Amino acid sequence: MAQPQHGSGTSRRAFLRNVGIAGGAGAMFATMGALGLAPTAAYAAEKEAPFRAPRRSDFTLQGRGGKAASVVIIGGGIAGLTSAYELGKAGYDCTVLEARDRVGGRNLTVRGGDSLTDINGVGQTASFSKGQYMNAGPARLAQWMVTLDYCRELGVPIEVFTNSNASALIYNPGYGMTAPVRYRTAKADVYGYVSELLSKATNSGALDGELTADDKERLLTFLKSYGSLGSDYTYTGSEHRGFSVDPGASGTPGEELSGVPSLAEVFASNVGRTFSFEFGYDQAMLMFQPVGGMDQIPKAFARAIGEEKIRTGAALTDLKNTADGVVVTYTQDGRTQVIKADYCIATLAPHLLARTPHNLGSEVQTALLAVKPSYASKIGLEYKSRWWEKDFKIFGGITETDMDLDHIWYPSYGHLGERGVIIGYYNTGAHSEVYSALTPAQRLERAVTQGVMIHGSKYRTELAASFSHQWKLVPYLEGAWHSMPGGPDAPAYAPLNTAQGNVHFAGDYLSYLDAWQHGAISSARKIVTELHQRVLAS
Amino acid sequence: MAQPQHGSGTSRRAFLRNVGIAGGAGAMFATMGALGLAPTAAYAAEKEAPFRAPRRSDFTLQGRGGKAASVVIIGGGIAGLTSAYELGKAGYDCTVLEARDRVGGRNLTVRGGDSLTDINGVGQTASFSKGQYMNAGPARLAQWMVTLDYCRELGVPIEVFTNSNASALIYNPGYGMTAPVRYRTAKADVYGYVSELLSKATNSGALDGELTADDKERLLTFLKSYGSLGSDYTYTGSEHRGFSVDPGASGTPGEELSGVPSLAEVFASNVGRTFSFEFGYDQAMLMFQPVGGMDQIPKAFARAIGEEKIRTGAALTDLKNTADGVVVTYTQDGRTQVIKADYCIATLAPHLLARTPHNLGSEVQTALLAVKPSYASKIGLEYKSRWWEKDFKIFGGITETDMDLDHIWYPSYGHLGERGVIIGYYNTGAHSEVYSALTPAQRLERAVTQGVMIHGSKYRTELAASFSHQWKLVPYLEGAWHSMPGGPDAPAYAPLNTAQGNVHFAGDYLSYLDAWQHGAISSARKIVTELHQRVLAS
Repeated sequence: MAQPQHGSGTSRRAFLRNVGIAGGAGAMFATMGALGLAPTAAYAAEKEAPFRAPRRSDFTLQGRGGKAASVVIIGGGIAGLTSAYELGKAGYDCTVLEARDRVGGRNLTVRGGDSLTDINGVGQTASFSKGQYMNAGPARLAQWMVTLDYCRELGVPIEVFTNSNASALIYNPGYGMTAPVRYRTAKADVYGYVSELLSKATNSGALDGELTADDKERLLTFLKSYGSLGSDYTYTGSEHRGFSVDPGASGTPGEELSGVPSLAEVFASNVGRTFSFEFGYDQAMLMFQPVGGMDQIPKAFARAIGEEKIRTGAALTDLKNTADGVVVTYTQDGRTQVIKADYCIATLAPHLLARTPHNLGSEVQTALLAVKPSYASKIGLEYKSRWWEKDFKIFGGITETDMDLDHIWYPSYGHLGERGVIIGYYNTGAHSEVYSALTPAQRLERAVTQGVMIHGSKYRTELAASFSHQWKLVPYLEGAWHSMPGGPDAPAYAPLNTAQGNVHFAGDYLSYLDAWQHGAISSARKIVTELHQRVLAS
Repeated sequence: MAQPQHGSGTSRRAFLRNVGIAGGAGAMFATMGALGLAPTAAYAAEKEAPFRAPRRSDFTLQGRGGKAASVVIIGGGIAGLTSAYELGKAGYDCTVLEARDRVGGRNLTVRGGDSLTDINGVGQTASFSKGQYMNAGPARLAQWMVTLDYCRELGVPIEVFTNSNASALIYNPGYGMTAPVRYRTAKADVYGYVSELLSKATNSGALDGELTADDKERLLTFLKSYGSLGSDYTYTGSEHRGFSVDPGASGTPGEELSGVPSLAEVFASNVGRTFSFEFGYDQAMLMFQPVGGMDQIPKAFARAIGEEKIRTGAALTDLKNTADGVVVTYTQDGRTQVIKADYCIATLAPHLLARTPHNLGSEVQTALLAVKPSYASKIGLEYKSRWWEKDFKIFGGITETDMDLDHIWYPSYGHLGERGVIIGYYNTGAHSEVYSALTPAQRLERAVTQGVMIHGSKYRTELAASFSHQWKLVPYLEGAWHSMPGGPDAPAYAPLNTAQGNVHFAGDYLSYLDAWQHGAISSARKIVTELHQRVLAS
């Protein structure tokens, strides 16, 4: 979304602005300044230039008299919906074919009453209470992501997604931990010892080759504050670790947690394993989610596109380039249907398109097969009470473990309420595969058994409902994200980054934010811009 | 709130449970386990024991036949409201006298139409738009604080208070910074160089006396991840710093922010000055706020107490202990009123009680005068657009500066909306005094001038309304919090921690969480328990 700066001069920039992919003042701002911020005066001089889709008037200017081209979009996920939405605003005649019974693709919110049957024939019906849900796919939005621009434009309210929490837990039994520790405690210990060690090295002169006297003084001041060091620069615990008795009224000063582990114990437990997670450009708090479920985004897209332009239950069976367009064959309600259009944007999973008859050629087929699906899965556990809030004082966030559940997510909505849905595992790769090989009942048992090790018996006794979701097993998707060595611009994928006849390809896999809606949207914006330029030039 | 563990044996514990200050399973849990978490089996064996107020049945058991004592509570802030609420549940006949026209005390939410006149006669009327507000006093709740238990009990919905944000800014012109830097960038640089230095010291053998070979290997693994170090353990920037061109579709891998400052520059700029803020037990994310304004808490208290038991505009003019109760004189609507009761809980500001005629004696007067008020202030700036979200991609959080505005808070509600209220300064001590000496117009100009240095001209041009609030100048409060060397249990304050005749004292100043509602509530719980024990024994 910061493409304006990606060009190479004034004319390129003006061109981009005209065709409507200017990234707004925010994007311009982000490119300026020595430390990532614009000099104030320069920034102030910039006018806001929000994203504008290709507009109908562009066609008129090209002498097409307002008659737009037709586009069939295969896949009603985020890339397909973005394409239909932006092209629709520009006057194109779009039809979206979605194989499943709802739009959104991997943007999937599971609520009570939802029934899903996996490709192995195993079905589950969710029995979550009213108002409770799990986001089985994408669940978080970073502040800089273009997805938020669409939430604004489409009127989708957002709230904080609790991606980090000092009160959440870390538990690495594989590293010898016998009980969980809170993030706040682990951070205090790790940062305390790091600060103590660096202070010692600094004070001993070991870094005199690196540091001036001023540097040393400033560094030591920082370390003392950062690591809560004593006056002798040693770490012996601090209130940052937390309290066993909370401070209260007069007479109750509180008691800091006792039992500060040794430096060797802290690093042997590997509690710092996930500390850098929260520094990620894509994961750093603050993060956000739509109020009421991630699928508020595809629902809002569908309303804006017009439901009549979207055909659900429409599974692609054949895709043909022709001399002047495309012929797309699909099945719907057991009947074979054919739709012709000037162009096609194929957003379905590349490994599934590879299985579908098409005439895109062997180079395309090889490229499609080079994109390998990767797997992820989640289980939603609805509880009769929010014991994690009442007993553990954990109001959201993520507990990390080296057990194969990988992550436990506490809900980012419904705080203080009666019930809530915990994500009991969110795992990927080999850990996800372990659970995909199990029945839903076995997955639940495995997840709960591990959760009890972290949270005690309420993890089992308060359970009210569950739903497990393995992306590997989902019809018409069969994957969570993609393995693409070298990134989307690697030569192996070049045929997918170019229009093949009248067929264009879009999707998060053709972006640098695979698995993120931002990636799907960015790819769609690129493709609709290319397609529009092509129409203008035709 | 964790008093059960503060006792010294079974009988003490049973006693506390009976009089109703058991802290719940969460508190018990918090005391267990080597690293702050209970061994699972032990925790699982614990039964939940939520806070229970003194109950009417306790009186019945003591042979009082349900006839409760009467209590007059001076001050309708959080301590006073908690006292009235808990005693009311136990059947006491309570009357709350609040000098101002609304309950809440320093828990004050300012909305459009609110008029406030300072003790110097200067008045302001807020013209914020509908739905926009500023919390002039307390604004955030930590997960462990008892305040959240009351939100649950009283049905006050909460949402995340955005206390930390990687996208917010740091700007220390006093340390030579010429432009703001984002938190994410500053953290990447500081943690990068800290990790590089400690790696060097470790690899050079300078810490061989401190570290085993295993320790060294584990430490280096951590530092490489934590500091985003290269394979040679040097820091040369990373994606953690942020991007000047965000990653997008194929062809747009993004561009990392350039211009990595040197180690000397990073530490000279003092960007790490506030990094430990987010480790504080009281400030670590996740933090929360009531939906719709902090005053939802006193409003809910007032509803639960019964509005008829609360007299607003009732300013204390005299407080007398008598042989069998108290005589409290106050003015309301210009008329002098007298109320007699069995007991009094005085929750008003101690330095203001010291100015009021009373017969509590010279030791109490000396103690009241020993509690010195401290000052804080905020200005609310309503903007016509949420330019911080659109242009800066800052969705909440706090920008830190060494200018005298101290902190800028971006709103934690209304994301993606049309308008929003920024806290343009939240400052304390000498910086607050600077603004208290100015007129509201001068405060606004000073705050906006500084804000423009950080955010550019929209900080001025998009402004729609403002309201500045200096706690020093607020009638019947005249302070934000308290200076009490040695803490609330220091000998100087002993007379306030003991009932004086039939008068008890409560307030956040008589707690270890001064300035927090948790402190006020904890103090009130202590006092109503003492008072109740006294009634039971009488």
